[in-house]
Amino acid sequence: MPVRYTPPTPDQLLPVPGVMLGTAAAKVKNWERDDVLLAAFEPGTAAAGVFTRNRFCAAPVIVCRRHLERGTDIRALVVNAGNANAGTGAAGIAAAETTCAAVASMLGCGLQQVLPFSTGVIMEPLPVAKIVAALPAARAALAADGWFAAVSAIMTTDTVPKGASRRVTVGDVPVTITGIAKGAGMIHPDMATMLSFIATDAPIAGELLATLAREIADLSFNCATIDGDTSTNDSFVLAATGRAPMAPMTDAADPRLAPLRAALAALAIELAQAIVRDGEGATKFIALRVDGGRDAAECRRIALGIAHSPLVKTAFFASDPNLGRIVCAIGNAAAPDLDPARVSFWLDDVLVVENGGRAASYTEEAGQRVMQNDEIVVRVALGRGDASATVWTCDLSHDYVSINADYRS
Amino acid sequence: MPVRYTPPTPDQLLPVPGVMLGTAAAKVKNWERDDVLLAAFEPGTAAAGVFTRNRFCAAPVIVCRRHLERGTDIRALVVNAGNANAGTGAAGIAAAETTCAAVASMLGCGLQQVLPFSTGVIMEPLPVAKIVAALPAARAALAADGWFAAVSAIMTTDTVPKGASRRVTVGDVPVTITGIAKGAGMIHPDMATMLSFIATDAPIAGELLATLAREIADLSFNCATIDGDTSTNDSFVLAATGRAPMAPMTDAADPRLAPLRAALAALAIELAQAIVRDGEGATKFIALRVDGGRDAAECRRIALGIAHSPLVKTAFFASDPNLGRIVCAIGNAAAPDLDPARVSFWLDDVLVVENGGRAASYTEEAGQRVMQNDEIVVRVALGRGDASATVWTCDLSHDYVSINADYRS
Repeated sequence: MPVRYTPPTPDQLLPVPGVMLGTAAAKVKNWERDDVLLAAFEPGTAAAGVFTRNRFCAAPVIVCRRHLERGTDIRALVVNAGNANAGTGAAGIAAAETTCAAVASMLGCGLQQVLPFSTGVIMEPLPVAKIVAALPAARAALAADGWFAAVSAIMTTDTVPKGASRRVTVGDVPVTITGIAKGAGMIHPDMATMLSFIATDAPIAGELLATLAREIADLSFNCATIDGDTSTNDSFVLAATGRAPMAPMTDAADPRLAPLRAALAALAIELAQAIVRDGEGATKFIALRVDGGRDAAECRRIALGIAHSPLVKTAFFASDPNLGRIVCAIGNAAAPDLDPARVSFWLDDVLVVENGGRAASYTEEAGQRVMQNDEIVVRVALGRGDASATVWTCDLSHDYVSINADYRS
Repeated sequence: MPVRYTPPTPDQLLPVPGVMLGTAAAKVKNWERDDVLLAAFEPGTAAAGVFTRNRFCAAPVIVCRRHLERGTDIRALVVNAGNANAGTGAAGIAAAETTCAAVASMLGCGLQQVLPFSTGVIMEPLPVAKIVAALPAARAALAADGWFAAVSAIMTTDTVPKGASRRVTVGDVPVTITGIAKGAGMIHPDMATMLSFIATDAPIAGELLATLAREIADLSFNCATIDGDTSTNDSFVLAATGRAPMAPMTDAADPRLAPLRAALAALAIELAQAIVRDGEGATKFIALRVDGGRDAAECRRIALGIAHSPLVKTAFFASDPNLGRIVCAIGNAAAPDLDPARVSFWLDDVLVVENGGRAASYTEEAGQRVMQNDEIVVRVALGRGDASATVWTCDLSHDYVSINADYRS
C-alpha cells in the first residue's frame, strides 16, 4: 500500500482532446492482464522527451531519442510492460523499430513519428512478435477515456495506478492536462520515474515544449529517489495536441505560459511523489530539504546522501530516532571544507542538531514522536550560503528486500 | 554467521613483543560484557593511523589526528564499544581527552602519547566517568596474550571476533604481526573498517610507518564495502614496537621491507574480507573486479556502483540470476563516453554479457548454478584500457534490515 496516496478513479483522469489510448494483452510475461499500451495523437501534436542518463540505456530509449531528433510531430506512443528491452544490443533496437513500424502502418504515419517504451526485466530478448500481434486489439480499444486502463497496463511492481488531471485557464481558454506514471523501484535521479506521460491540449511549439519538459522533470521526477538506481528505461514524455482553440505558444516569455507551466509542474510533482509513496516496500514518505548551501548541487548531493543511506532508511522503517545516522550521512556527502559546527537539522518541528551537536532542547521522546509518523520532513541547515534543494524518498523495509529478491519468480 | 570465515581461536592470535592488552567492563551500554580495551606499548614504539574522511568525524578521530601530528611515539590505545562519541561537539572532544589523560596518568606517559577510539551509537554523550572508572581493571588485566579478549571487547554488531597473526622473516630475524578488526555495518571506503589495529615487533621508523599504513589501507580496508556508509569513527592503526633484534627500517627502499610489507598487506586483506564476510545480514561474499578501464578510479567507481546497488544486492541474496541489474549498475556508474558494445562480464567462469548484450553461450541454468554459491566473483571488462580495481561486498538480506531497524533496542 502506498504511503498516503489515493490512486485516481477512472473518471478522475480527464480526456485530453487529441489523445486516444488503448490497451491489449500481449502476454509478454505469463500473466492475465493487459500489458501493451497504444497512445495515438492527432496530427499537429508536438512531443518532447527526457530520458535516462544510464550508459546502458534501453533500446527503446535509443530509438525515442533518434525519432525525436528528427522532429517533434509525434503521432503515437507504444509501451509494453514485463520486458525492458535493455541490454539487448542491436537485436533490441531492431525489435523496437519493428514495433514502431507496425504502429505506423496501422495509423498511417511515419515510422519515426512513433515513440517506443518498455519496462520490466533487463537483458531478456523482447518478445516482439507477441507485442505486434496484440497491437490491432489495442488500436480497436482506442478511447479518449482510456487513461486509467493505460496506466494499469504499464504497471510492474507498482501497487496502484498513478495518474492525475488538472484543468487550467490559459488566456481565456480552459485546457486539460492529464498525466500517468509507473515506477516503484530502480527509482533515482536523473531520470527519476520509470515512465511518465503527460498530455495537454494546449498548443505549445516543439522547441518550447522540449525546454518545458526538461524544466518540469528537474522540478519533479529528478527529485524522487527510492533506491538510488537509475533505470535503463526511465522516460518522461510531454505531449501537446494543440486542440485547444488558441494561438500556439512558441516563446518562453509568453505570459499565457505561466499558469500552464505551474499546473504542469504541480501535476508532475504529484506523480513523482506518488512514485515514491508507492516505492517498493515503502512505509514512510520522507522529504529531505537542505538549506544554506553554497550552491544547489551541494544541497542536492547532501539530500541524496541522506536519502541513499541504508542505515538512515532502516531507522525510518523502525521509527527509531537513531538520528546520528543522519549526521553521519551528512558528513559523508558534504564537501571537505564543511564546518560541522555550523550544521543544524530538524525532524519536522523538532530541532535535533544545533552547532554540530545534539541540541540542548532535544529529547528522545520528541524524536520518537515524529519518527512514528508516516510522512516526515527532514530539514538540514548548512549555514554557509543561500542555496537549497529538496529530495523525496521512502524507507527501506523488509518488503523492499522481499519484492526485489522475488521479482522474477 | 559470517560467510566462509572461521574466527581465530585465542591461541592463534600471537603475542607481539612490546604489546600488552587488557579489557574491562565499563557498562557503556546496559550489557554484561567487557567493553573497554587498553593496549599498552613499550617505549620506543612507533604508530601511524589512517582515519575516516567523514566530515562529521568523531571526537576520538579528531584527538587521534592531533596526537599523531605531534609525534609517532605512541604508548597506548584506549577503546570503548557501545558509544561512538560522534556528533558530540566540544564536550565529546573533552571526553576523549579526559580518557587519554586517565590512561597517561596510569602509565606515566604524556597525554598525547595515548590514542582514543570509540565505536557504537552516534550522537549520545560518552559516559566518560564509567570508562575512566573501568581503566584500572583494564590495566590490571594487561597481558601479552590479550588479543582475543581485546577484539571481543570492541565488537558491536559483529557476530564473531576477527583477527589474525603472521610470522615472517625480515632479514634473518623472525618477526610477528598480529591484527584485529571490528565492524559489520556502516562499512565503506574510505576508510572501510570501523576499527582495526595491527602491531608488529619489527622496528619501522614513524615516517615510513605512516606511508606503509596508507598503502596497506588502500589495498585492504578501502576495498571493502557493505552498505556504502563511511562511519564517523573508522580508524586503522599500525604499530611497530621495535622489539625484534635488528636495525630499524627507515627507508621505503630497504630490501628487508618487502616480505614485511607483503605479510602486513595479506593480514590486512584477511581482516578487511572478514569484515565483509561478517557484514550485517550477509549470506554471500562477492568480489567485484573491473578490468580494461582507462584508469583505476573509473574501474573502482564502477565496482562500487555494482556493490552499492540495492537491486544487485537483493538479487544475490535471492540467488536469482537477474543479471540485467548488474548491466544497469554498470551503466549508471560508467563515464558518459563508455561504449556499451565493448562491455563484457562474467559470473565466476560464466560469460554473461558480451559486446554489450547477453552472450550467445549464456544460459539461465549456468547463471543459476553460480548464483547459488556463497562466494562469487563478478568480473567486468570495459574494453577501453589497462586499468583495473577490485571491491569486496556482500548481499542485502532481510537480516540487514532487521539488524539495522532494531540496533538500538
